[in-house]
Amino acid sequence: MSTGKVLHFTEANANLFGDSAPGTSIRVLIDDENDGAPTTVLRMIEIEPGGNSPRHRHNYEHTNFVVEGHGRVLIDEVWHELKPGDAALVSANILHQYVNASDVVFKFLCAIPAKHLIQS
Amino acid sequence: MSTGKVLHFTEANANLFGDSAPGTSIRVLIDDENDGAPTTVLRMIEIEPGGNSPRHRHNYEHTNFVVEGHGRVLIDEVWHELKPGDAALVSANILHQYVNASDVVFKFLCAIPAKHLIQS
Repeated sequence: MSTGKVLHFTEANANLFGDSAPGTSIRVLIDDENDGAPTTVLRMIEIEPGGNSPRHRHNYEHTNFVVEGHGRVLIDEVWHELKPGDAALVSANILHQYVNASDVVFKFLCAIPAKHLIQS
Repeated sequence: MSTGKVLHFTEANANLFGDSAPGTSIRVLIDDENDGAPTTVLRMIEIEPGGNSPRHRHNYEHTNFVVEGHGRVLIDEVWHELKPGDAALVSANILHQYVNASDVVFKFLCAIPAKHLIQS
């Protein structure tokens, strides 16, 4: 049985998101498959200056916290400014997109539900 | 239906934890009851220099990310140093405690499952 773990976010692999998200990488910090975390998958997303995440929607929510840099998030039809210390909720099935609005890397946590909690 | 929300963590009320956690306050940033977040309750915990959280255990896990200051977390029988950028998982039913180990406020996110996901 896992008692827990501690790691610095830079110790987790940064994986490029792909063509739909130029300049964007994602690190999985804590999850169910590797750590036995039953509820929340904690991920760090890093978007280079000029980069963005895909504009999309899906059937699970995002819970965000901005760590570094400045950006914007589209939630439904409204753009919101994001700065360090901001938390955000993007509800399930809502159109959303994250954009770097600064000249440094935009770093934010993006928690999602563990796979077994996502309604198919 | 909620589409989401954005707030700076300082906009949420800081509530003192109580006598079992000297110098410790907690802000609920995103939850189910107020925001319709179905999975993860996102909270910011702030511990003053010299302060600590209770040493306790409960039937749900903590998912942490350190924002500011330095501290320590007891997980089961092992103390781990915590610095900004560190993520931590404290699994359910594991004895744990957080302590400020610096002379500035120790600030960390502490996510827990939404109430309806906690097994009674």
